[in-house]
Amino acid sequence: MELEELGIREECGVFGCIASGVWPTELDVPHVITLGLVGLQHRGQESAGIVTSDGESSQAFKVHKGMGLINHIFNAESLKKLYVSNLGIGHTRYSTSGISELQNCQPFVVETLHGKIAVAHNGELTNAVQLRRKLMRHGVGLSTSSDSELITQLLAFTPPLENDDTADWVARIKNLMNETPTSYSLLIMHKDIIYAVRDPYGNRPLCIGRLIPVGDMNGKGKDNSETEGWVVSSESCSFLSIGAEYYREVLPGEIVKISRYDVQTLDVVPRPEGDPSAFCIFEYVYFARPDSIFEGQMVYSVRRRCGQQLAIEAPVEADLVSTVPESATPAALGYAQKCGLPYVEVLCKNRYVGRTFIQPNMRLRQLGVAKKFGVLSDNFKGKRVVIIDDSIVRGNTISPIIKLLRESGAKEVS
Amino acid sequence: MELEELGIREECGVFGCIASGVWPTELDVPHVITLGLVGLQHRGQESAGIVTSDGESSQAFKVHKGMGLINHIFNAESLKKLYVSNLGIGHTRYSTSGISELQNCQPFVVETLHGKIAVAHNGELTNAVQLRRKLMRHGVGLSTSSDSELITQLLAFTPPLENDDTADWVARIKNLMNETPTSYSLLIMHKDIIYAVRDPYGNRPLCIGRLIPVGDMNGKGKDNSETEGWVVSSESCSFLSIGAEYYREVLPGEIVKISRYDVQTLDVVPRPEGDPSAFCIFEYVYFARPDSIFEGQMVYSVRRRCGQQLAIEAPVEADLVSTVPESATPAALGYAQKCGLPYVEVLCKNRYVGRTFIQPNMRLRQLGVAKKFGVLSDNFKGKRVVIIDDSIVRGNTISPIIKLLRESGAKEVS
Amino acid sequence: MELEELGIREECGVFGCIASGVWPTELDVPHVITLGLVGLQHRGQESAGIVTSDGESSQAFKVHKGMGLINHIFNAESLKKLYVSNLGIGHTRYSTSGISELQNCQPFVVETLHGKIAVAHNGELTNAVQLRRKLMRHGVGLSTSSDSELITQLLAFTPPLENDDTADWVARIKNLMNETPTSYSLLIMHKDIIYAVRDPYGNRPLCIGRLIPVGDMNGKGKDNSETEGWVVSSESCSFLSIGAEYYREVLPGEIVKISRYDVQTLDVVPRPEGDPSAFCIFEYVYFARPDSIFEGQMVYSVRRRCGQQLAIEAPVEADLVSTVPESATPAALGYAQKCGLPYVEVLCKNRYVGRTFIQPNMRLRQLGVAKKFGVLSDNFKGKRVVIIDDSIVRGNTISPIIKLLRESGAKEVS
Amino acid sequence: MELEELGIREECGVFGCIASGVWPTELDVPHVITLGLVGLQHRGQESAGIVTSDGESSQAFKVHKGMGLINHIFNAESLKKLYVSNLGIGHTRYSTSGISELQNCQPFVVETLHGKIAVAHNGELTNAVQLRRKLMRHGVGLSTSSDSELITQLLAFTPPLENDDTADWVARIKNLMNETPTSYSLLIMHKDIIYAVRDPYGNRPLCIGRLIPVGDMNGKGKDNSETEGWVVSSESCSFLSIGAEYYREVLPGEIVKISRYDVQTLDVVPRPEGDPSAFCIFEYVYFARPDSIFEGQMVYSVRRRCGQQLAIEAPVEADLVSTVPESATPAALGYAQKCGLPYVEVLCKNRYVGRTFIQPNMRLRQLGVAKKFGVLSDNFKGKRVVIIDDSIVRGNTISPIIKLLRESGAKEVS
Repeated sequence: MELEELGIREECGVFGCIASGVWPTELDVPHVITLGLVGLQHRGQESAGIVTSDGESSQAFKVHKGMGLINHIFNAESLKKLYVSNLGIGHTRYSTSGISELQNCQPFVVETLHGKIAVAHNGELTNAVQLRRKLMRHGVGLSTSSDSELITQLLAFTPPLENDDTADWVARIKNLMNETPTSYSLLIMHKDIIYAVRDPYGNRPLCIGRLIPVGDMNGKGKDNSETEGWVVSSESCSFLSIGAEYYREVLPGEIVKISRYDVQTLDVVPRPEGDPSAFCIFEYVYFARPDSIFEGQMVYSVRRRCGQQLAIEAPVEADLVSTVPESATPAALGYAQKCGLPYVEVLCKNRYVGRTFIQPNMRLRQLGVAKKFGVLSDNFKGKRVVIIDDSIVRGNTISPIIKLLRESGAKEVS
Repeated sequence: MELEELGIREECGVFGCIASGVWPTELDVPHVITLGLVGLQHRGQESAGIVTSDGESSQAFKVHKGMGLINHIFNAESLKKLYVSNLGIGHTRYSTSGISELQNCQPFVVETLHGKIAVAHNGELTNAVQLRRKLMRHGVGLSTSSDSELITQLLAFTPPLENDDTADWVARIKNLMNETPTSYSLLIMHKDIIYAVRDPYGNRPLCIGRLIPVGDMNGKGKDNSETEGWVVSSESCSFLSIGAEYYREVLPGEIVKISRYDVQTLDVVPRPEGDPSAFCIFEYVYFARPDSIFEGQMVYSVRRRCGQQLAIEAPVEADLVSTVPESATPAALGYAQKCGLPYVEVLCKNRYVGRTFIQPNMRLRQLGVAKKFGVLSDNFKGKRVVIIDDSIVRGNTISPIIKLLRESGAKEVS
Repeated sequence: MELEELGIREECGVFGCIASGVWPTELDVPHVITLGLVGLQHRGQESAGIVTSDGESSQAFKVHKGMGLINHIFNAESLKKLYVSNLGIGHTRYSTSGISELQNCQPFVVETLHGKIAVAHNGELTNAVQLRRKLMRHGVGLSTSSDSELITQLLAFTPPLENDDTADWVARIKNLMNETPTSYSLLIMHKDIIYAVRDPYGNRPLCIGRLIPVGDMNGKGKDNSETEGWVVSSESCSFLSIGAEYYREVLPGEIVKISRYDVQTLDVVPRPEGDPSAFCIFEYVYFARPDSIFEGQMVYSVRRRCGQQLAIEAPVEADLVSTVPESATPAALGYAQKCGLPYVEVLCKNRYVGRTFIQPNMRLRQLGVAKKFGVLSDNFKGKRVVIIDDSIVRGNTISPIIKLLRESGAKEVS
Repeated sequence: MELEELGIREECGVFGCIASGVWPTELDVPHVITLGLVGLQHRGQESAGIVTSDGESSQAFKVHKGMGLINHIFNAESLKKLYVSNLGIGHTRYSTSGISELQNCQPFVVETLHGKIAVAHNGELTNAVQLRRKLMRHGVGLSTSSDSELITQLLAFTPPLENDDTADWVARIKNLMNETPTSYSLLIMHKDIIYAVRDPYGNRPLCIGRLIPVGDMNGKGKDNSETEGWVVSSESCSFLSIGAEYYREVLPGEIVKISRYDVQTLDVVPRPEGDPSAFCIFEYVYFARPDSIFEGQMVYSVRRRCGQQLAIEAPVEADLVSTVPESATPAALGYAQKCGLPYVEVLCKNRYVGRTFIQPNMRLRQLGVAKKFGVLSDNFKGKRVVIIDDSIVRGNTISPIIKLLRESGAKEVS
């Protein structure tokens, strides 16, 4: 909850799709990408975009981008415009800075000596300042403050090694990975190929799914002959809604080439010896949807186990266990179960309270968390309640919540 | 859940506010109404409006309306425009028909022989067809298909009985109630007064709150001298966020006059003898926010008791109890508690799936409920799960959910 | 020019169309109305609307309205929606007050005891205050401050005389004309009929055109058998662009019934004895497009004759004659010709200067007319110039123009 | 007229302003630029932008861009945001291709090794294809298809020669001019300086104006001590409306440095020996506003002289001379005067006819030019009329106009 209040939402979602069939396929790629992005909408609500490739020429990309939610940006008309071939990539964005401009919408398209590429990026480059300077010293002008522009320019900038295109792009990607160790999960589209890349530290998630015939979601028909296409996504939670099944994670440092025909590992760039992997803990705690799978485990299960562990490490004599809705609910249920205490709901979230939309006057500012929550006082009056939140950074949010619950009748835990 | 799928959301929310102090008060009335409407946003997301009165002349109303969510419609500029005096009323609307037009946004303002009135209405008139014909026969042209226009015209149409304005409006309101028995919860603003009216059957909710000094939400200072103003709302859930406390319900058939100074019952129009009250059951089941209070009981508690009762009436031998998020959660928790079975979460709702925004092709249409839910399969694989939904109308939604859970590993309940 | 500066543009444009053929006709009625309104756009740029009737039921009207220019409001999609039958009416509006709201967009649609009517109105009622009071006294609530709402309510309000619909509407229209003498040019659509009405004083223009086969604009084929449909418009200037030819003016006080089959005069309501007709002089001077025909004469010719007459009444010894662009140009050319002086252009208008869009600071406010005009100083340096404007009300505009020209080198006329 | 029909409007307008005073000055620079761009609106109506610099840091630029007309894009709020210092540049754009995207809005801002620059460009690079390839070969990725991006990258790309910033930018600009000979009129803003550059062939116009105290537009006070600031604009027609007087043209190949203090020529890059200058003839014929001054002569005067010359080269025995409104009017007046024939108006342009906004059906397509013009037939019936247009490319527009006039009664010129 406090992470949300602090605006710690530097996430983005990336999603790509390639249909297996011969064009025109029955699989409507732009529609699949749109639904895939809807499944990643929790990672970014500021802007979104889709780029599709005609798969043959390296010039013919179709682009549609906009500010706001996926459902608002894409409609029948824009999807029709994007419907040109077997493949495309998309991006949904949450801005870290206050500036939210159409100019920063991804995927970025850039023309290079070897044709156009489209790039969708989730992550933040740790050496962005040095890379900016390096690129500008080489004579490249930079139009945005975005890390993702640095990635596109690094991909364009790398001297081409050979004439063969495939070799070329892998070399460029490896060179990029050499220039910046972390953090990025990337989709790079060129002609009829999508390259899926995760930085060697594996900081941001990325996984692959297989589109299977609908009506057979039950695990049957897993032989390759029935594959309808491939998808690649920041989180596996977007698979169910498009008729895809989880295939595997992209490994830290791995460069995967996805085509109509198959999914190939081209290389796995190792971390410096001794360095541990660095998957972002907040993905488990807060960013990800609970039904996503990371490192072989469902996010929900990890959250519940955290609650169980907390019950072991910090048991409390109390009457009830509850939560600050809603990313902490699995932990609260785990805590309650481990302690043998009843789980109840004590707060009711108003989903329609947005970011502070009007400067409140003194009176309304004092109301604080009450603007965001209703109190289910009947559920806990006169009881001692353990409240589980997903994280505590400075305690600025949990304190007024506790005050609110006390004023509404919760008893002190002695 | 199925109610949501069926689009049974014919609700609206009404909210009024009067500041007690001498104008200009510290209490920013348009801002309070805006936040009050945000607290009723779950009752209607299509359009909203606020009308404020300068309190003296019967002509000087300020109006701001728009399509979409409250946060989108109202900003610093529009609130400033509305800031003219001690009182105002607002409305948030969910359209029953497919047509959503600015023209149907409430509150409606209409000029009558005795000055302008603004009207906010929640409900549907059972004798609308007859009333339309009656008004047209009298020579009134009707511009919309809205029941609420009938109410404004009936209020204008009633022959004035006396010269005294107050008497006049009560007579007109009683005449309106005579013409149409149900259903309506109404706010009628004229000059410096808000009349709050509930139909004799009490079909739709309406309650009154008292604005108290902020910083003292703990029940202290309840003597009238500290009242900062009065609010009237479809649901009490909107009170906490604006620093108001629950005062009382408007009774079925009651006409309440709210002014700067106090809250007075002017009359209570009785139902025909023998007729029972008819508070809408779906308010408890689905429409209302769980922290609202109807008939002296918290909605959440009613829902939980329904679950407990179901456990008594229909116990099942199973391993787990769960819910279709999220209005059925209290019932599921009640059921689980009564049965002594563990409560788990099995579905994870994607909040960003809107109404069908693009006509899906065959493949995507078959995916059905999977577009709306993620499956937390780790939580129930190999287990027998009892699923509690808020209601079942035709079973069109619960059937595919059950199929989805089975395919994800839920065991049959024998 | 000064009329423009003073914002004296209380005009509106009305346009109706009925196709002669059996539905579906080749004549796309909504498209013709749209182009007809584009031809009347100079009469109002604030909002516009079109209503079409399915021609059979008195209920089935299609409505599309919006703020802004015709080209912005109507597109392929909205025209398709409106394409339901042989007839429709449209309106383009210029607001007199500062308030510009979608609510005031015409045509107004109102349901009456005898079915729905759509009304498009150009004019201002001289007894609006009395009519408002009369209607409200009868119990009609009024939603807008618009005169046009009074007209729709008067049409609805009139007690029905007979059961026969046609008789009924003529009686209602005559009753309306009895209630309010001026000013209105009206289109009233009911089922498959458009009634075209001009007030007895003939204050605002209205004329009828005949749609003829395109490719034959040369006057051939004027027998009725080739009529493709009828149009009715505030000004005849809108005829050429849709392939219609001027048929005749609606007379002051005339009620014309236009159907698929023909154009019939139903009645001509006379003025009170002794009262002269009162066609608005500003239509000739400023409002109308110069190629429109009023009272048998082209507006351009009237303007030129005014200039010629001015040369007779007020000859000046000078070197050049010029104009304030652009409604005064014909008068200037007439003056120049009559005096035998050369006509030159001295000012160049910037069409993109809108109404004061940003509050200017002191410096920029002093620049006055220079924001609106460029000066073609080479054309008149050292010469004595006669400047003809279309009208002078207070002289607030012409004075700074004269100052500007002097400073740019124009010599004094002694 | 035909140029307009053919969509030959590849123009843009650039405008810059520097206030002389110490910040904060009385001169509101963003407001002056906005009005300056309104004066250039005829050169491009698709999108516009303004960038202001804080004048000290090379990082602090404020940017506001949008689609549509200046009046629509800039308002009090956006101007306030831009109000940071003494200087800024703006651009208004007409797209040559069908694609109109916010991404292509100028001025472009790019960060280089020596800080941020903003660039506004009018023109088309003749060697764009080669330059694109050269930049990409160097490793620069290109995000748009715009020539103006090539210019920004060439300015960023040029290896810095010295540490001194001023020297640096002149060297970079000269290097740019070396790389591409034509066509460009450029404004380049860096810190507190605006560089104004015209290509050696002088293909596109650019001129400098001096802001003088308002209230003294009469030529008095031309000593430097009274200069309030400097402006630089595609056309001098934008000067009058902001209180500036024409100072001088930027010469072909000239690099001018404009600061708070003065206007300096830094260099004049020559054309290859033997090459003539190549000022675009269509600026005189069609693009420019008639009150602009190019090469020491007013555009209006050039157009009139063209008409006079035509009268000498191609005299016709006729009764009247007229024009296709409105860029050809000066030529028609010149022709008429030279021939001694009367000038009349025969066509009346409907300003509200936009680009084909709805696909017309067969009937409406045949109406052709009649959609755009009204015919003032009374002015020429039975007369032989000479029609002067600004240019004839294929004759696709003038032919139907002549047909229309004949059908409206014009007599044949034998």
